[in-house]
Amino acid sequence: MSSLTRKDFLKTAAAAAFLQAPRGFAADVLDSPAIRKIHRHIEQHKQEHVAKIQEFLRQPSVSSWNMGVTDCAEMLRGYFKAMGCKEAELVKTDGLPGIWAWYDGGAPRTISHYMMYDTQPFEEKRWSSPPLEARVVKMAPFEQVVMARGAINSKGPIRAFLNACESIIAVEGKLPVNIMFTCDGEEEQGSTHFHQVLAPYMDRLKMCKAHLGAGPSQNREGQVTMMLGTKGIAAAELECHGARWGRGPQKVPIHSSRKAILDSPNWRLIKALSSMVSPDGNKILIDNYHDAIVPPTEEETMLIETLISRFGEKIFASEKENVKVWANGWSAADAIRHLVFDTSLNIDGLWSGYTGPGMATILPEKATCKIDSRLVPNQNVDDQLALIRRHLDKNGFSDIEIRKIGGGDEWSRTSVKAPVVQAVLSVYKKHGIEPAIWPRAAGSSPQAQYTRAPLNLPACDGGVGHGGRAHSDDEYFVIDGNQRVSGLVECEQSIVEILYAYANWPEG
Amino acid sequence: MSSLTRKDFLKTAAAAAFLQAPRGFAADVLDSPAIRKIHRHIEQHKQEHVAKIQEFLRQPSVSSWNMGVTDCAEMLRGYFKAMGCKEAELVKTDGLPGIWAWYDGGAPRTISHYMMYDTQPFEEKRWSSPPLEARVVKMAPFEQVVMARGAINSKGPIRAFLNACESIIAVEGKLPVNIMFTCDGEEEQGSTHFHQVLAPYMDRLKMCKAHLGAGPSQNREGQVTMMLGTKGIAAAELECHGARWGRGPQKVPIHSSRKAILDSPNWRLIKALSSMVSPDGNKILIDNYHDAIVPPTEEETMLIETLISRFGEKIFASEKENVKVWANGWSAADAIRHLVFDTSLNIDGLWSGYTGPGMATILPEKATCKIDSRLVPNQNVDDQLALIRRHLDKNGFSDIEIRKIGGGDEWSRTSVKAPVVQAVLSVYKKHGIEPAIWPRAAGSSPQAQYTRAPLNLPACDGGVGHGGRAHSDDEYFVIDGNQRVSGLVECEQSIVEILYAYANWPEG
Repeated sequence: MSSLTRKDFLKTAAAAAFLQAPRGFAADVLDSPAIRKIHRHIEQHKQEHVAKIQEFLRQPSVSSWNMGVTDCAEMLRGYFKAMGCKEAELVKTDGLPGIWAWYDGGAPRTISHYMMYDTQPFEEKRWSSPPLEARVVKMAPFEQVVMARGAINSKGPIRAFLNACESIIAVEGKLPVNIMFTCDGEEEQGSTHFHQVLAPYMDRLKMCKAHLGAGPSQNREGQVTMMLGTKGIAAAELECHGARWGRGPQKVPIHSSRKAILDSPNWRLIKALSSMVSPDGNKILIDNYHDAIVPPTEEETMLIETLISRFGEKIFASEKENVKVWANGWSAADAIRHLVFDTSLNIDGLWSGYTGPGMATILPEKATCKIDSRLVPNQNVDDQLALIRRHLDKNGFSDIEIRKIGGGDEWSRTSVKAPVVQAVLSVYKKHGIEPAIWPRAAGSSPQAQYTRAPLNLPACDGGVGHGGRAHSDDEYFVIDGNQRVSGLVECEQSIVEILYAYANWPEG
Repeated sequence: MSSLTRKDFLKTAAAAAFLQAPRGFAADVLDSPAIRKIHRHIEQHKQEHVAKIQEFLRQPSVSSWNMGVTDCAEMLRGYFKAMGCKEAELVKTDGLPGIWAWYDGGAPRTISHYMMYDTQPFEEKRWSSPPLEARVVKMAPFEQVVMARGAINSKGPIRAFLNACESIIAVEGKLPVNIMFTCDGEEEQGSTHFHQVLAPYMDRLKMCKAHLGAGPSQNREGQVTMMLGTKGIAAAELECHGARWGRGPQKVPIHSSRKAILDSPNWRLIKALSSMVSPDGNKILIDNYHDAIVPPTEEETMLIETLISRFGEKIFASEKENVKVWANGWSAADAIRHLVFDTSLNIDGLWSGYTGPGMATILPEKATCKIDSRLVPNQNVDDQLALIRRHLDKNGFSDIEIRKIGGGDEWSRTSVKAPVVQAVLSVYKKHGIEPAIWPRAAGSSPQAQYTRAPLNLPACDGGVGHGGRAHSDDEYFVIDGNQRVSGLVECEQSIVEILYAYANWPEG
């Protein structure tokens, strides 16, 4: 490195810098005759695989509408049975059911694999192809996509993973790893009850060596992204109600003329919220809110600086239409660092009284908001909520109720040095792919339930393929790729390679 | 008054203290053979009058749903024609139509009379009798009420007034006063376009000597209330939008993880609102907001102190369930004074982002609220809104938009000494009724469009009869009264007496 600056090094070496593949690994494992045979099988069965994806997408599973979720769980359980899982059962929760399934092919190594099979709702008239028909259509710049609610998030990828597994079994008789599947039917509702799905199987999950996902990980330009963790999320409703306060309207809204002589829960909630942040809304003023935060590790810093050097502002290319400036005058580089390493306090929703057209002159008896705070190491959900509670109490707002919502996902972190990450990187390396490696996603997921105590599994995702418009209309999953983006066949083939790479990777 | 304290005087003399009826007035005018004959006619035609009320109530006129309002206007116009109005026409506005009608019986005196013929919406399944069927039902403690949307607010009373007028004409050939009717089809929408109904007729309205209403004015206990004015109301939506601000999400909500690096219109609206009021939400901190307020007149003070002495806490009896304490530790007496003489700043509604069940983690691109401020002499709507604008600008919130909503009713005031008020008081006096006289209502109405320049008419309402549950389900108008409350016949008879009393009252 003598003649290179640190920046040059980062620019040129990129992800490869983080890979230490064993000598000959790519040729021995990833180019083996078995894998070539499986790849051909996938090519030959493409139409059946597309049909399987369509079948799964045509079964609705909209958790917020309670529409079809249990039927979809039964369908998925059937798939697990069909591929030869020795256990496959619906798991009751206080909400919608989850699924446990166990494929045991007698392999030396067992992985944990997560699936979410519920979807967002949809507004059918906004779609160019009906969201439950899962038609294969042209969608420029792609020749063929399957368009449906859940196409990319995540029922299309679920079925692609199962297609890949079934192809391996068809050719080789069994998978190179055993898999414990735990599946969530309430992800779009914040995975509120997902811990109840895991609880009965914790002892068996301890047999796993890694938590591995595989599926489409490319964006529209073909760039592969790898997230080595997630932020946590503390979410809650805060409500000021006249009855709890003992002031203002006690039961129902009152005529707004009464404001001249009556206290207002609306003003009170506003004062309480206002006390939590700096005048610009960007600095959290809750005592001790940042105390638990530890500085980024050297590895995290290296990964972030690599990202900044390689991509800079391009990281936010897809948000350019909707974002003009970052908070606090930050550059894109600053923004990337804060997005990954900083906590936040957001108001997701706010409501009180009359919100329709024109006027209805009332003094409402209550005011409510939803907040969420993204958490980084070593903040945790309940402690941060307790700090908010203490802040309200200290400032005289002890009557304001805090109702925790969502699953309270904790942050999750896996080292780039973990064997499962190295195995996925080796697959990318073989294909000349340099993934954008984030030390953690800015978003949240139940991943910590696998990566933190008691399971402590390293976690990683990988694969090629692309889909988009998750949560929006015209959600799609690419069947036939283009120069930049891989299609379904390559996606399933990358899943196969990832499973074999990890199965054969020397344990660290 | 030598042996009475001021308080005793107020307690015993009550409303009578404010009446200076001409000698022999009650016997000469109110007990005349003509009136006795009209009263009998009303008694004899009670069933037809009830049927007329039912007919009018069965024609929907829900302005917020745009349901039947124009058909209802046509029906009312037909009633004016039928009673012999020389003009009766629908008046186009930028919203729903109003009505102008002119009854000219050649009487020396002409009055202005306001009607609102639109109603609130309804939720039919919550009603014990269908809201558009206008059935006559028993509703304890009343033997017979007509139950319908609009029964008391205000289609029942409109038709009762017309029944009374038609009875006079049937017996006497013509009314004792000429009447200019101006009618509002958007009262429940804030009378936004009502000035457009009045504008073409302003010159003719200048012929009027008073603005007189007559109809049911009793509460459930039989107490008659008389309001000698209204407060004004400045109402507006305040909105913070990322695009106007140039910060935060510019077009659509963004993933809430972005709060770590992006400004939030929600926090900004909260900071802006918070700056407007004291920590307890009860003192308006907008510069000069109170400057225009003048102290109550001697008459207003006298009226309020009389109310306080006579009724005290009973004024708020109907609110006891919903109100535990008044703002600032005020007694009921303090509350009555502030309710009438003080301005206010209220948040009627507040909304942003996701407000449904569970979570949707977004950073919304905008936040909005509805505010209203009740105004007293000499505040006026546009000046107070301008002060709010100036406050926002001064505090760095110039991007926050203020959108005026509603009709912007100004305050209205009439002296108890006005002949039209004295005429109504003489009718009460004759029946031994002591009305609760408020210098002004805490609420607002378009009344100022008659009582302030250019018309400057004194305004007054009066009459017996009762109805209730306006804006709620099971809205009713009493047909057969009880010991406390008058029924429809007495209601219509009181309308007759009020018209004759004013027609014969010596001009001041």
